[in-house]
Amino acid sequence: MNILAFGAHPDDIEFCCAGTLLKYRAAGHKIFVALTTSGNIGSNVIEGREKIAATREAEQLEAAKVYGAEVRFLRFNDQGLVDSEAVRRAILNTMRWANPDVIFTNFPGDMSTDHNVTSTLVGRMMLCLPGKNVPADEPPITKTPSLFYWDTGAGLHFEPEVYVDITDTMDQKLESLAKHKSQFAWMDTFQSVSFPEHCRLLGAFRGLAIGRPYAEGFRAYRIHGYMPNFKLLP
Amino acid sequence: MNILAFGAHPDDIEFCCAGTLLKYRAAGHKIFVALTTSGNIGSNVIEGREKIAATREAEQLEAAKVYGAEVRFLRFNDQGLVDSEAVRRAILNTMRWANPDVIFTNFPGDMSTDHNVTSTLVGRMMLCLPGKNVPADEPPITKTPSLFYWDTGAGLHFEPEVYVDITDTMDQKLESLAKHKSQFAWMDTFQSVSFPEHCRLLGAFRGLAIGRPYAEGFRAYRIHGYMPNFKLLP
Amino acid sequence: MNILAFGAHPDDIEFCCAGTLLKYRAAGHKIFVALTTSGNIGSNVIEGREKIAATREAEQLEAAKVYGAEVRFLRFNDQGLVDSEAVRRAILNTMRWANPDVIFTNFPGDMSTDHNVTSTLVGRMMLCLPGKNVPADEPPITKTPSLFYWDTGAGLHFEPEVYVDITDTMDQKLESLAKHKSQFAWMDTFQSVSFPEHCRLLGAFRGLAIGRPYAEGFRAYRIHGYMPNFKLLP
Amino acid sequence: MNILAFGAHPDDIEFCCAGTLLKYRAAGHKIFVALTTSGNIGSNVIEGREKIAATREAEQLEAAKVYGAEVRFLRFNDQGLVDSEAVRRAILNTMRWANPDVIFTNFPGDMSTDHNVTSTLVGRMMLCLPGKNVPADEPPITKTPSLFYWDTGAGLHFEPEVYVDITDTMDQKLESLAKHKSQFAWMDTFQSVSFPEHCRLLGAFRGLAIGRPYAEGFRAYRIHGYMPNFKLLP
Amino acid sequence: MNILAFGAHPDDIEFCCAGTLLKYRAAGHKIFVALTTSGNIGSNVIEGREKIAATREAEQLEAAKVYGAEVRFLRFNDQGLVDSEAVRRAILNTMRWANPDVIFTNFPGDMSTDHNVTSTLVGRMMLCLPGKNVPADEPPITKTPSLFYWDTGAGLHFEPEVYVDITDTMDQKLESLAKHKSQFAWMDTFQSVSFPEHCRLLGAFRGLAIGRPYAEGFRAYRIHGYMPNFKLLP
Amino acid sequence: MNILAFGAHPDDIEFCCAGTLLKYRAAGHKIFVALTTSGNIGSNVIEGREKIAATREAEQLEAAKVYGAEVRFLRFNDQGLVDSEAVRRAILNTMRWANPDVIFTNFPGDMSTDHNVTSTLVGRMMLCLPGKNVPADEPPITKTPSLFYWDTGAGLHFEPEVYVDITDTMDQKLESLAKHKSQFAWMDTFQSVSFPEHCRLLGAFRGLAIGRPYAEGFRAYRIHGYMPNFKLLP
Repeated sequence: MNILAFGAHPDDIEFCCAGTLLKYRAAGHKIFVALTTSGNIGSNVIEGREKIAATREAEQLEAAKVYGAEVRFLRFNDQGLVDSEAVRRAILNTMRWANPDVIFTNFPGDMSTDHNVTSTLVGRMMLCLPGKNVPADEPPITKTPSLFYWDTGAGLHFEPEVYVDITDTMDQKLESLAKHKSQFAWMDTFQSVSFPEHCRLLGAFRGLAIGRPYAEGFRAYRIHGYMPNFKLLP
Repeated sequence: MNILAFGAHPDDIEFCCAGTLLKYRAAGHKIFVALTTSGNIGSNVIEGREKIAATREAEQLEAAKVYGAEVRFLRFNDQGLVDSEAVRRAILNTMRWANPDVIFTNFPGDMSTDHNVTSTLVGRMMLCLPGKNVPADEPPITKTPSLFYWDTGAGLHFEPEVYVDITDTMDQKLESLAKHKSQFAWMDTFQSVSFPEHCRLLGAFRGLAIGRPYAEGFRAYRIHGYMPNFKLLP
Repeated sequence: MNILAFGAHPDDIEFCCAGTLLKYRAAGHKIFVALTTSGNIGSNVIEGREKIAATREAEQLEAAKVYGAEVRFLRFNDQGLVDSEAVRRAILNTMRWANPDVIFTNFPGDMSTDHNVTSTLVGRMMLCLPGKNVPADEPPITKTPSLFYWDTGAGLHFEPEVYVDITDTMDQKLESLAKHKSQFAWMDTFQSVSFPEHCRLLGAFRGLAIGRPYAEGFRAYRIHGYMPNFKLLP
Repeated sequence: MNILAFGAHPDDIEFCCAGTLLKYRAAGHKIFVALTTSGNIGSNVIEGREKIAATREAEQLEAAKVYGAEVRFLRFNDQGLVDSEAVRRAILNTMRWANPDVIFTNFPGDMSTDHNVTSTLVGRMMLCLPGKNVPADEPPITKTPSLFYWDTGAGLHFEPEVYVDITDTMDQKLESLAKHKSQFAWMDTFQSVSFPEHCRLLGAFRGLAIGRPYAEGFRAYRIHGYMPNFKLLP
Repeated sequence: MNILAFGAHPDDIEFCCAGTLLKYRAAGHKIFVALTTSGNIGSNVIEGREKIAATREAEQLEAAKVYGAEVRFLRFNDQGLVDSEAVRRAILNTMRWANPDVIFTNFPGDMSTDHNVTSTLVGRMMLCLPGKNVPADEPPITKTPSLFYWDTGAGLHFEPEVYVDITDTMDQKLESLAKHKSQFAWMDTFQSVSFPEHCRLLGAFRGLAIGRPYAEGFRAYRIHGYMPNFKLLP
Repeated sequence: MNILAFGAHPDDIEFCCAGTLLKYRAAGHKIFVALTTSGNIGSNVIEGREKIAATREAEQLEAAKVYGAEVRFLRFNDQGLVDSEAVRRAILNTMRWANPDVIFTNFPGDMSTDHNVTSTLVGRMMLCLPGKNVPADEPPITKTPSLFYWDTGAGLHFEPEVYVDITDTMDQKLESLAKHKSQFAWMDTFQSVSFPEHCRLLGAFRGLAIGRPYAEGFRAYRIHGYMPNFKLLP
């Protein structure tokens, strides 16, 4: 299968979904990742948006190597992502490019702006996948992918419907997260735990629910014609 | 009374609301229909957005004859409808043009993009109906219409608050739906039941709730000053 | 696996869950059914609660033959089921007797009294399955079954989380429902469609959501230690 | 029509529903009121539960005269009302006695114990109305009444679905409330506004929503076969 | 502390939040108010949007004097407020300008268009407060303010989580509201109670919940890093 | 102040609330704990319900010493707790005995049977606190305590409204939990993490939300007259 993880910022995918991607990868599936923004305001140390974006894209490419993914950057402005025809078109192009069987993205109830805009727009484009006459730069696709939402940063406003046991891939997940070096100091100014420990805690907490050391939790997007197939999860 | 059905695409109104409109018509009320888009990506057979739009507008006009409605096309792009001042103004103009006592529209929780944008924007314009100074091309109106949301395509995310028994108008409803000939083959590529059978099933299912062969279900928009009056339903 | 369907009345299981049970059966699993009541007020034609119960139990046994299930009757009074130690104990005994991997029961949000009491009490007994010191007449079991809730009569207050395609077993499902002969006339006094047609409609409507002719929809009970495993569904 | 108001305590009906009952009465309908308890702990001044009950029943009879209702007391203990076969049977008897077209009762989400137990049990008995074989002392009835829930004491946890304009009956409503003399001092120990002023405030607040001086708000019970008909409201 | 009240229209703050602001002021805190629009369609008597805006800004400045606030007008069009980079930037600037410990704004579930857009966008900008690289005209701030949503016009769709007793400041609150003279006649065309009486009723109703003559109710915005601190409320 | 923690089983209070109790204790408040059951089915190693109860009561008394609480056992059967007049009376007696300013209890949405029954019944008794004529063995009290619900075992179905930072008391909290020695082996048969590590994880996860190492999260019970005062939390 083709698996697409569509996030808002570099590190979103590693933080919330990489354990699951690593399981897909180990089972021989093909992984695609895409980001609506390159997180170009995500530093108070690096100077200037271009430089932040360049740094973070490089980190993202390193991270994606850990789970062997192809990467696509849409390069809209971090904290500047707004519903518009241009953003919709770029998202649709990317969804068609990956030709996915399963899509993962942020959660629409996440209060972080880019997270909910990305998530909402990925959902908005689902019905456009097969349409020949939708303005787009990639040809239509005929698959009807399942779309799952990943967790929020500290689990707020999010109760998983389904869990993936990531005990076996937790180490590699943290390895991929560790590539986002620029975020470690930045995040430490906001939190009392380090960025990787934060990630480990969220995984351990979701694991509690299913009686396993580590898990990632997901909710499903539902529209008739594109209903979730839970059996496609690893 | 004046009744306005405000949909996102040709066939939305016939699919979810025509049974009710036919009852209003039979009782002597005046029917208006309006569409934010002409469904110009709604075919993989017809070539080009202009041609699809032209075909579907013609079908919509035929369908509206079955329940005797005046029709207004706003002609925004299918799957390209975004919240903006231009769309809001066109919607407000249309609402004032119909001078309605009751309005029906899509449901804001519908995951189909144009459906929720249309619905949200119709709701957004309610408080602008009487304002002299709102930029618009139609004069203010003083009625305070009740606004009802119709069902989603397969009933997902939608629990009706109120039902209209359409047993007597079901045949004519299907007749109006049948005018949307271009959609029959298109829909059949997505579904295991035919388009009219799908419509019949939804009506029969909603009918179960009230112990009648066929019904349409609705939910209400509520804001103080424009609260729903259930007694205006047929 | 062992599959337990735990209903409130004769015909509940056939109406909402038999399509799924037939798929399990065809795959070689063992089916158990249990009923908290024998539906002893479920007729205005048959005279007396004992006679109604006897009739309906006989019908239930016939129905269960269609999907090859063992049956257990708890024989509490229809419309008289109340949360109490006695009912809880009988339910726990039955759950242990079946030693299930998957349990199905009514939905706690179902407004039909026996439905929500049965459902609530089956849920209440989940944590008692392994306890040696819980007063009971069956020995503890160590499995941690997934518990799923089936649909309500006309789908009210119920949005499925997961669907089972029952297109292949729909005919046999209706055959099992047909064994509940005493209910056909009784139900016809309340509804505008016949009992089997009602059942067919619900299945067809749930099928719409997943693009298949017939489906049964389910929601999951969740408590840590007994979380649903969607992959156990057929 | 026959209208039944089924409350938990003397003054519940006057506080939340009498404005509507007075409109029914004025239109020529027959009014029945019933109370699960006689409010026998509802005083710290009167000594003893029998005496409190006697006082409050007398007050209730006076209040009911204002809107011309027949009254039935079930006399279970205030704050002692528990789901049981005995309470259910008494409630069913009462519902059949009134042979109602419309029923009003407390709201199941009301955190006041007797309010939610009364409400839940009235709902539990709906499907028993027509059954010949349900143990009861009143014969079955064949009507399928609409059941509406009235407001909570300060509107907490309650958003009305439908409103009845009681501007014309507000004075008489307060007159009926005034009969519950024993409650005035008792209530004043808990509140910063007087009991009648509290009632007036709730009515005025609900009126705001519909742009009228006074209103009562209601929500509907829904089960297929007994769905609400909003047009039966005055 | 610095307290920021961020509303959509002149009079929003006075109507829903001034009682609380007055308590902060009395305790020596600094008050800032900002408005996304100057309510330039909010009259059918005054001619033209510029003139309405000028009138209403003058009234707002008078009102703000009552609770001693600094005022900032963003001057987007009333009923024309749309999510965009320009509006977001202006809102972010304003939030940084006030350097607040506590922010109040409209409620995102409010069906009034400008109310929910203002509220949503204030929430959207929370994570941008400390970022050096977010395009803005005010420098970053390091405080992590609590954000609270105030009530809706008639309390619809809003259940407070927390209440502030405004009994002592109610008179001054009404005094500040009275400065919005242009709204009195305008509002009277929609309502059966006068504008100040409407405000008094809402305060008295919220007071009922906590057993005090007058209160304002609030709900909290929550995202990790910017969680509400209820102890900062007066 | 007097603080009452009312749990269903020995270890509930230590697991979910002891960090907060320790803060109250350190501030000089008086702590009371009460348990509806003595957890007499909570072991598969100890033989017999009496012996389990005796063991666990002894452990509870040791645990309570850590935070200096008085303890009261109601001794209803674990997994046998049903809503009844007897249980209600025992709970009311206990609430009056503690004469609390703040009460903590399990959450009514917790799917663990005794947890939700205990929680529901504590809520049911709130309005009975001041009534002279409610059958009880303790005299009425006039305080109007705030009631808060603590977390569920793995946080399922629970989103805190408010958090208490327990970083300073976490060590002592775990010390009190460690007194429940009989539960350590028992819990290890169900979980992949040890009982104290489970507790630490829940605390660390709730801490994430507020940017602190450890926290306990709570939700509030609300009824007018007994609304939560968040400022009473430590």
